[in-house]
Amino acid sequence: MPEITSIIRSKRDGFELTGSEIDWVIEAFTHGIVADEQMSALAMAIYFRGMSRTETARWTTAMIDSGRRLDFTGLGLRTVDKHSTGGVGDKITLPLAPLVAACGVAVPQLSGRGLGHTGGTLDKLESIPGWRAELSTAEMAEILTDPAVGAVVCAAGTDLAPADRKLYALRDVTGTVESIPLIASSIMSKKIAEGTGALVLDVKVGSGAFMKEIGEARELARTMVELGSDAGLSTTALLTRMDTPLGRTAGNALEVGEAVEVLAGGGPDDVVELTLALAREMLAAAGVHDVDPADRLRDGAAMDRWRSMIVAQGGDPDAPLPTAHHTETVRAESDGVLVGLDAMAVGLTAWRLGAGRAQQGSAVQAGAGVELHVTPGDSVRAGQPIATLHTDTPQMFPAALADLRGGVRIGVEPPERRPLVIERITE
Amino acid sequence: MPEITSIIRSKRDGFELTGSEIDWVIEAFTHGIVADEQMSALAMAIYFRGMSRTETARWTTAMIDSGRRLDFTGLGLRTVDKHSTGGVGDKITLPLAPLVAACGVAVPQLSGRGLGHTGGTLDKLESIPGWRAELSTAEMAEILTDPAVGAVVCAAGTDLAPADRKLYALRDVTGTVESIPLIASSIMSKKIAEGTGALVLDVKVGSGAFMKEIGEARELARTMVELGSDAGLSTTALLTRMDTPLGRTAGNALEVGEAVEVLAGGGPDDVVELTLALAREMLAAAGVHDVDPADRLRDGAAMDRWRSMIVAQGGDPDAPLPTAHHTETVRAESDGVLVGLDAMAVGLTAWRLGAGRAQQGSAVQAGAGVELHVTPGDSVRAGQPIATLHTDTPQMFPAALADLRGGVRIGVEPPERRPLVIERITE
Repeated sequence: MPEITSIIRSKRDGFELTGSEIDWVIEAFTHGIVADEQMSALAMAIYFRGMSRTETARWTTAMIDSGRRLDFTGLGLRTVDKHSTGGVGDKITLPLAPLVAACGVAVPQLSGRGLGHTGGTLDKLESIPGWRAELSTAEMAEILTDPAVGAVVCAAGTDLAPADRKLYALRDVTGTVESIPLIASSIMSKKIAEGTGALVLDVKVGSGAFMKEIGEARELARTMVELGSDAGLSTTALLTRMDTPLGRTAGNALEVGEAVEVLAGGGPDDVVELTLALAREMLAAAGVHDVDPADRLRDGAAMDRWRSMIVAQGGDPDAPLPTAHHTETVRAESDGVLVGLDAMAVGLTAWRLGAGRAQQGSAVQAGAGVELHVTPGDSVRAGQPIATLHTDTPQMFPAALADLRGGVRIGVEPPERRPLVIERITE
Repeated sequence: MPEITSIIRSKRDGFELTGSEIDWVIEAFTHGIVADEQMSALAMAIYFRGMSRTETARWTTAMIDSGRRLDFTGLGLRTVDKHSTGGVGDKITLPLAPLVAACGVAVPQLSGRGLGHTGGTLDKLESIPGWRAELSTAEMAEILTDPAVGAVVCAAGTDLAPADRKLYALRDVTGTVESIPLIASSIMSKKIAEGTGALVLDVKVGSGAFMKEIGEARELARTMVELGSDAGLSTTALLTRMDTPLGRTAGNALEVGEAVEVLAGGGPDDVVELTLALAREMLAAAGVHDVDPADRLRDGAAMDRWRSMIVAQGGDPDAPLPTAHHTETVRAESDGVLVGLDAMAVGLTAWRLGAGRAQQGSAVQAGAGVELHVTPGDSVRAGQPIATLHTDTPQMFPAALADLRGGVRIGVEPPERRPLVIERITE
């Protein structure tokens, strides 16, 4: 049996861990043989020393092997999934999953709930009356093979990469989240265990993203693409801008409403652009080159898939979405051009209004959030509505208003237009 | 209440911790509010980022304040203590404490038991029939003020720097021992809490010491001298060589026997030299400049103090010391000069024979250890006895013999003579 203290010291002193050391550490940690205080010291040493490609790949495999690995290859389907590192107003999965299914590639997505300023896809879908996130693997397979559906977004079971679940909870309270090999292996262990045949990563960069700098975002993307490749999973990443919220809504039901607009052929330009860009990457990763997803948005096929996808998980696509009981309008304080609308400020506002949760396990408000009436570049006049805040807890308005105002910049020169998709990373 | 995760991240990112952050961390850790996994991550961040002089001083004070602080100033005595970072055959405290007391300065020493290849002073003294390590503070004060004694070496109570006790146990299993500010604050918190009026540090350097390199030993010594000075405790450090064992014995009763030889005016040159060097530093630190400790060795005053010191703690200075039931002679394998006798090898040999403990709380053999018949520089002939191994567990002989042989180097050229005291460090 390897000795954990000497493994920690080895990494601390800059040596590469061996494959069997990594396998043992992950298994022993999962079973409580390596204590939390030892794993957190190791995680901090990894924060400082990093891990090589070989080490990170082995670490990822060991986390996958700590639990069950789904396998849909027996279904005779092409499958592809998308993962976003999280942004404000990022409802892209909602139109994207049915759109890609409508193009003939099944989408098996295990997703999570939100914590902090970015919302969770499951929280958004749960604002649809009747919709349920918990499915068995058999139910997943049934929906994926149903020719009228082919897309499923549901909660990951606790038996999927349990080592990652335990390690993530530990990193969260020990200041060891911000390590690229640990972030990359955490994401990829879950995505590989989920059993998708190909993967597209949306790595966000900017003030509203976890990665503020292009350099670190690129390194994270490259590390994840390498991990996918090393695991035999065709993986591509797009680096996309997250300085300002995606679309005009941040909040659960508000974002579902906007996603439905996109599926109906409308919706904000940036949401449509990113949905199509990611759909094209996903189709390419799955080996489909002869379908243009824009056609499937236009002809209503994506909307049909959306409706049957919601129905398949118990939801009613025609039921009115919940709305909050109180609203408050935020108005421009001067004439000018909206120069900036900070994603982090909008995310925190929505979170404070009740769209997000302060700690794991607490409830979110379905109707809460921020509705934006202008986007950067728009001219505004003093007194013109900039945003509407929605909540069931109006006592949060003063703090939420202050958060939002801190993120609004009105100036004279319109801001430079910058492309939403910054870079594409592939092996 | 400060947030521990942000404190960890702050240190991780290279910022200096504030005084109130340090106070809070140490107190919250002592009371289990900061969890072990958080403290070990912080310790690893400190390993990489270090701590400034201000931070280290505050960290030390906070650890002292986690428990009781002894105070002998009311006794109207000058007091001084010595602390060694640990070496093989390091029995110096045994002749030193009574010698300094004989020179008119009281010595209140709280000491520990050994773990690993270096012996503990309490383990050595406990080989004297009847001697007991556990004393109350009132008993300590009584012995210190007794004009015929004036020196006490006893066990530190669990209420002395409990934060350090808890932190040290954690560092031991999380690969975070080797951090100079953490080592320095651990030693100094105990020594300052012990209530001595002045302190001399014996920082060992070399193969048998914790610090292998002069640079790191110097940094540790300087950090501890600064901590003493910042706490108003007159502190001096000597860097001393620990490549070869001190004296000719390593093992509990064997070392007591050698200490008594020194007190009787004999004993190995190096033990006498270091005892006198440290005694002079201690007297100077206590402001006594008109006594030569060599005289007190010669005239028997130190021996008288030794006897009354042993009696004061229940021991019988005339009782025969325990001996081991089995011995084995190690002989030179060739003619030549003894070029090297590695301290670590001798320490491991003694430990394996039963002089040390493999884990905290287990018993040690009073009679076990290594008796050396030659020192580096001596000529040897093939077959000549080099050492005698003593143990009650003769099944350990083969492994112990192999350990010892690995540390014996016989060559042709006598080794360069190097001074025992390398450097003196003071503020």
